Amino acid sequence: MDLMFIPFICGIGGIAFAIYLVFYVLSCDQGSERIREISGAIQEGAMAFLGREYRVLAVFVIIITIILGIVPNLGWWVALSFIFGAISSALAGFIGMNIAIRSNGRTATAAEKSLNDGLKVAFRGGSVMGMCVVSIGIIGLSIIYFIFGKNPNFLSIIPGYGMGASLVAIFARAGGGIYTKAADTGADLVGKVEKGIPEDDPRNAAVIADFVGDNVGDVAGMGADLFESYVDSIIATITLSMIAFTVSMKNPLTPNELTAWYLPMLVAAGGIIASIIGVFMVRVGERPEMEALLGALRKGTFIASILTAIFSFFAVHLTNSDLGIFWAILSGLIAGVLIGESTNYFTSYAYSPTQKISEASQTGAGTNITRGFANGLMSTFPPIIFVVAAILIANKFADVYGVAIAGIGMLSTLGISLATDAYGPVADNAGGIVEMSDLPPEIRERTDALDSLGNTTAATGKGFAIGAAAITALALMLSYCQAVGIETLDLLNAKTIAGLLLGVMIPAIFCAMTLNAVGKTSFSIINEVRRQFKEIKGLMEGKARPEYGKCVDICTRDALKQLIAPGMMTILAPIVVGYILGPLALAGFLIGAVACGFILAVTMANAGGSWDNAKKWIETGKFGGKGSDAHKAAVVGDTVGDPMKDTSGPSLNIMIKLMSIIALVIAPVLAGWKGLF
Amino acid sequence: MDLMFIPFICGIGGIAFAIYLVFYVLSCDQGSERIREISGAIQEGAMAFLGREYRVLAVFVIIITIILGIVPNLGWWVALSFIFGAISSALAGFIGMNIAIRSNGRTATAAEKSLNDGLKVAFRGGSVMGMCVVSIGIIGLSIIYFIFGKNPNFLSIIPGYGMGASLVAIFARAGGGIYTKAADTGADLVGKVEKGIPEDDPRNAAVIADFVGDNVGDVAGMGADLFESYVDSIIATITLSMIAFTVSMKNPLTPNELTAWYLPMLVAAGGIIASIIGVFMVRVGERPEMEALLGALRKGTFIASILTAIFSFFAVHLTNSDLGIFWAILSGLIAGVLIGESTNYFTSYAYSPTQKISEASQTGAGTNITRGFANGLMSTFPPIIFVVAAILIANKFADVYGVAIAGIGMLSTLGISLATDAYGPVADNAGGIVEMSDLPPEIRERTDALDSLGNTTAATGKGFAIGAAAITALALMLSYCQAVGIETLDLLNAKTIAGLLLGVMIPAIFCAMTLNAVGKTSFSIINEVRRQFKEIKGLMEGKARPEYGKCVDICTRDALKQLIAPGMMTILAPIVVGYILGPLALAGFLIGAVACGFILAVTMANAGGSWDNAKKWIETGKFGGKGSDAHKAAVVGDTVGDPMKDTSGPSLNIMIKLMSIIALVIAPVLAGWKGLF
Repeated sequence: MDLMFIPFICGIGGIAFAIYLVFYVLSCDQGSERIREISGAIQEGAMAFLGREYRVLAVFVIIITIILGIVPNLGWWVALSFIFGAISSALAGFIGMNIAIRSNGRTATAAEKSLNDGLKVAFRGGSVMGMCVVSIGIIGLSIIYFIFGKNPNFLSIIPGYGMGASLVAIFARAGGGIYTKAADTGADLVGKVEKGIPEDDPRNAAVIADFVGDNVGDVAGMGADLFESYVDSIIATITLSMIAFTVSMKNPLTPNELTAWYLPMLVAAGGIIASIIGVFMVRVGERPEMEALLGALRKGTFIASILTAIFSFFAVHLTNSDLGIFWAILSGLIAGVLIGESTNYFTSYAYSPTQKISEASQTGAGTNITRGFANGLMSTFPPIIFVVAAILIANKFADVYGVAIAGIGMLSTLGISLATDAYGPVADNAGGIVEMSDLPPEIRERTDALDSLGNTTAATGKGFAIGAAAITALALMLSYCQAVGIETLDLLNAKTIAGLLLGVMIPAIFCAMTLNAVGKTSFSIINEVRRQFKEIKGLMEGKARPEYGKCVDICTRDALKQLIAPGMMTILAPIVVGYILGPLALAGFLIGAVACGFILAVTMANAGGSWDNAKKWIETGKFGGKGSDAHKAAVVGDTVGDPMKDTSGPSLNIMIKLMSIIALVIAPVLAGWKGLF
Repeated sequence: MDLMFIPFICGIGGIAFAIYLVFYVLSCDQGSERIREISGAIQEGAMAFLGREYRVLAVFVIIITIILGIVPNLGWWVALSFIFGAISSALAGFIGMNIAIRSNGRTATAAEKSLNDGLKVAFRGGSVMGMCVVSIGIIGLSIIYFIFGKNPNFLSIIPGYGMGASLVAIFARAGGGIYTKAADTGADLVGKVEKGIPEDDPRNAAVIADFVGDNVGDVAGMGADLFESYVDSIIATITLSMIAFTVSMKNPLTPNELTAWYLPMLVAAGGIIASIIGVFMVRVGERPEMEALLGALRKGTFIASILTAIFSFFAVHLTNSDLGIFWAILSGLIAGVLIGESTNYFTSYAYSPTQKISEASQTGAGTNITRGFANGLMSTFPPIIFVVAAILIANKFADVYGVAIAGIGMLSTLGISLATDAYGPVADNAGGIVEMSDLPPEIRERTDALDSLGNTTAATGKGFAIGAAAITALALMLSYCQAVGIETLDLLNAKTIAGLLLGVMIPAIFCAMTLNAVGKTSFSIINEVRRQFKEIKGLMEGKARPEYGKCVDICTRDALKQLIAPGMMTILAPIVVGYILGPLALAGFLIGAVACGFILAVTMANAGGSWDNAKKWIETGKFGGKGSDAHKAAVVGDTVGDPMKDTSGPSLNIMIKLMSIIALVIAPVLAGWKGLF
């Protein structure tokens, strides 16, 4: 029997499990009319955004498909694989978000019964996204194998799939990110700062757009981001060892060409089974304190990690591969867990880094911001050390191939880690719905506990996503070098240095563009909310309803418009560098972009997370509590951090992977080219 | 005749010119008793700081000297060269700052007569620093040549000189930077924000410390920074071509070993003569408008650049070198000028990037900060493009050697460019003195015009300093690779990648440390100023004087204490990386640090500069003018930008050069070492 049926069947199993979860969520009580009304508005806005986003995306997909098809060294099979990748990613995002937006109202309703009920609905709602991403990913790759496995042009075809996934990801992550933060800052600036009304207040016209944003940014966006990492890390590993056989005939530690496919797919398949078991393990007992909640999620992830390690060992054994590969997988797996934990240290208000930011808020917004930014910069230390350690260990035990498969190790438990991540926005939305539905305060307390847990898992998830992106992009870069025939990438060559410097610059420019995009979009929202407060009589007194839909529309339109420039730059940059300066410079460019993108992404995500929680710590009564000067200063810090942590930072993940996979796709075109200069 | 006498004599000429300028400045009217009193307090504070700083420094110098002396492959000649470098840099900083602090009161007094008189005194005061740096640098290197030129161990001895200069630089730039910004933010936060009194108000206890900071940070610190770049770029070029002869016997385009020395030194010598002529050309006519002032400085720099190009051509001819080297020099020279101009575009309120930040201030501090930060990130584009272009052109015409000598080209007009830079703090101080002396408003207007010009030249100077640092560090890295015997630096090697990732991280950590250092130091100042307002009766009413000296003391003590950790990290990092991961990883580490340090330094310097000027633009009456909500938001942005642009950003310049020169110094120890891992 072809071993490739195992991952395919595991993928089908994952889908079956996702369907079970969907039925579970849909069978839950939809709650009161008010809840259904709000939830309905969120669903409508989210689907409207996704619809428009996919339409814009379709134009790009068609153009790129045609280009790929007509370029002589690529061709229509590559183009087909590209479309297939794009559809796979879009499908995973669509299903996952569709269920997430149906879970929020149900979570609010379940929380009326008990905290445990609330957690169950929210977590299962989020798990659909997790399971869809890994299952669709592995099924898609299996199909590519069954159709093209024997195609002589295979090494160009499979990266096409990853490129399709990456293209969807940049739209989903950056577009969703711009949307969510523009709506959020818009709502906050007019609501909290100017009008002095609380968060999630129904009088605020941008409040529904804000809820929509959580779903399109943190559910659909995050899902697409990790779908991309997941399939790209597998693709990088497969191509790396296939090229080793077909091009340079080096021994890649796996015994034959087929195992080049089998091993990565089997490790990933083991991760799916482990994740399903882990998801089942998540339940809280009678002690619904914060620690118990966090403990429940941790237990699930931990069990999944152990099982994945065991399954990986068997996969290595089954394929007669070198045992060193197992150590490489393990190093990636452990590094992923540690990166998540370190993120938690730098962003949770249980630890001193964030507390110091709260303290610095006493001397004003300026010192709050400086301290938070410094914290973000400082927090790059552990992830870099863990990634470096994983690379060195993986390389020691299994050479360059080890580095690539370490990435698969890191991502193997994605099914459950993405579930804990997607749970966050569901809980956040549920809290907002409770706030807007005038339910009793104890229900809000319960959803607040769920939300607060969601913030922690979101921070951990972001750290994990960045680490995974960096190691995946690195693996893709290594594959690119092999594919284009670079045996040694000499940094003493002026072109490589030039490429490296340009590569280091590009994430900075990308950040600037996305930060400005949020600013411009939120400016439109602010004006709209102000207009509604001015023109709609009785709105401030709660006698009239704002026009939520207007804000949703404006946000959708502007976010997608602002997305074009950074998206185009990301797609064109590797092509332009490769064409003008040649393939060596492009390799330098990619590694520069990965390194700098990693640093900037961690800095932005963690600075943003710690500003957010520094504000929350003050809200627990520290340094004067809510409404104090320190709190006002902390709110400014949070506003600065929002687009950093939810737009620019996470979008960088996609950016570095997308550029790397484009390089890999165009490698056959670049091979032998020396550049213009 | 040994051609090396030419640079030596030019250096002596530069010193003679500096002495002439000193006499000119000292012969000017010291002004009223009040002016002399204030100026005296600044002088006292500045000298007290420098004294303490040099004492701390002396301890480091002695320890490192002993270590260098006893390490087998280095020895006492290296140690001696190191001490000599440290003393040279300290001397240049001491003389330059000594005159700058004597020029401020005299500039204020001269401004009472006319704008032109004020400009003349301020610019000549600043020129002393410029001339001292280049002259002492070239004389120091000539002496090294005369003493050690024939020493077989020469290739280890000459980098020692640069390392000494670098060590002084990190203390002067980072220590001075922490001092100046802690005093500035401390003064602003209590004075402007809490008490609502104007800038430079004599009731503010931190105001003298703030003036002192301008001198120790922007005069002494900037001088040491560029002294380091200046000598390091020459050292890198010399070692690169010497090693080419002695180690690999490649043709470095210069005809023999002696020209390895002659050419860089002659180019630098030509730059000194050109700078002297340029300084003489700076004068304004009867139209003392802003454009005329800026035009006068520009004319001087422009003439110096043209002359340097001509002199360089003759230097290439005189040494029978390849004409390609001339093009390499020219590419560096032009890149330096363009980088300065681009900085001006991104930070001056005459252009849209800064105006947009002012506009964003209308929606609060949050949007102001996001916009400014995005602007800083975006501003990395031109400097990277210019440096990349210079590298590619220089490399095309003169190989790796061209990259190194392009750095000399960029720095050759340092005499005058540093003069326009050091002019800034003198004018700034003069303005403050006028404010504190109750002189008529028209005098303040004149010094404001001078100060405003100083801000522009400071921004240009900072951009120039960063570009020069990047290309110098790169040249040192190339020399290091040659010295340690790395023929190709393979980026596909896991250790090189690991080194690169660690290198990219280190500037981020360094920034975090220095930002926090400013925060901690300013916290002490804030408490002290608050205490004085509370405890000194009649202070707020202007009936009592604050105790300025206390603030100066606290700032000195804390700034130097906070400097130890980042300083130690910078010194130890290359040694630790080289020891644990080996010389290949260290090379990757250096290039990662240079690339990321470059990006971060530009971002921080330009974001900070643009926040500052966005505030100033609002103060001209835009968006509600002074006191409006937009202005308050812009003040927060300025507070955030201050430590970025004057502490962390500029200190990164030193950091990347210091690590590179340490690597070059320890190259003989590392050669053949494989690392522990």
